[in-house]
Amino acid sequence: GRQNSQPRSVETELGVTLEDLYNGTEKKMKITRNRETPSGMQKEEKILTIEIKPGWKRGTKITFQKEGDQLQGVPAGDIVFVLAERPHSRFKREGNNLVYEATITLPEALCGHTLTVDTLDSRRIRIPITDVISPGFLKVVAGEGMPISKQPGAKGDLIVKFNVQFPKHLSDNQKAGLMRAFNSP
Amino acid sequence: GRQNSQPRSVETELGVTLEDLYNGTEKKMKITRNRETPSGMQKEEKILTIEIKPGWKRGTKITFQKEGDQLQGVPAGDIVFVLAERPHSRFKREGNNLVYEATITLPEALCGHTLTVDTLDSRRIRIPITDVISPGFLKVVAGEGMPISKQPGAKGDLIVKFNVQFPKHLSDNQKAGLMRAFNSP
Repeated sequence: GRQNSQPRSVETELGVTLEDLYNGTEKKMKITRNRETPSGMQKEEKILTIEIKPGWKRGTKITFQKEGDQLQGVPAGDIVFVLAERPHSRFKREGNNLVYEATITLPEALCGHTLTVDTLDSRRIRIPITDVISPGFLKVVAGEGMPISKQPGAKGDLIVKFNVQFPKHLSDNQKAGLMRAFNSP
Repeated sequence: GRQNSQPRSVETELGVTLEDLYNGTEKKMKITRNRETPSGMQKEEKILTIEIKPGWKRGTKITFQKEGDQLQGVPAGDIVFVLAERPHSRFKREGNNLVYEATITLPEALCGHTLTVDTLDSRRIRIPITDVISPGFLKVVAGEGMPISKQPGAKGDLIVKFNVQFPKHLSDNQKAGLMRAFNSP
């Protein structure tokens, strides 16, 4: 038979949501492993519990030592889970920051707008903006980003990027009114 | 001494303007070359005339055969000019098209605007735009691009890209007027 003196580690991707990484969570993973026993090869099932701490990043490795297959007299290898972050419908993570793309209409961009954002821990925050919002305008909301795993209690920022949707068409009447308004004091 | 049986060509960059490439032009280049004669080495000066045809592109090579140095019994090499396009203050060339970036104000973008563009042959063209101009809006003016050297009389397009400059600040009075105008029929 084969002779490998080194135990083999097995890496498995563990896809988690941004909510999981924000709030922290526990994942239970059922593994099946082969164990050589005096009475022959046995398949064992086992539940491994992975504690995901708030702020962990994609690529983080969680190692369960000697939980892999144990075959042919070689010590059992490790099982390693590698965190993968599933795409999120509202946020993109950039380091410790969260980036949120808001699309607003031109009247909202010019006349003032209060943005409502549902956070990853299910709060609804209101972000009032009184500045004129030009395309590409960024609004930084300090402390509403991802938790920073090495600084308990600290969080990155929420960065809101604005897309401004122009009307497809304006009537002559609307154009005249807009021109009057731009030219008024 | 050295023995090279192959004549050496000399490549020289020839920087020209976009106007030169649009209109065509003649460039006179003074070269100095070494010639071996029965009475020894002679330095010669010569004027080479390069005819640049409308629509030529950067990288075009113009070769003057046997106008290079002639040394040690080896036939004279060629002199090769390679067209390089100098950056232009108004236009970027993209193949046969010219790209023009226009920065206009938000009132101009919304209420209608006639753009004035000075062409590479010193005409002033007017481009009336009645559509709402959103950021990134493109206006294509057919036939106002670069001449196409292989199709005499044909030209590419002029592509106008719009940047829309938002006002930094709007008064409450202006905001109210804008809102009224957007909401009017």
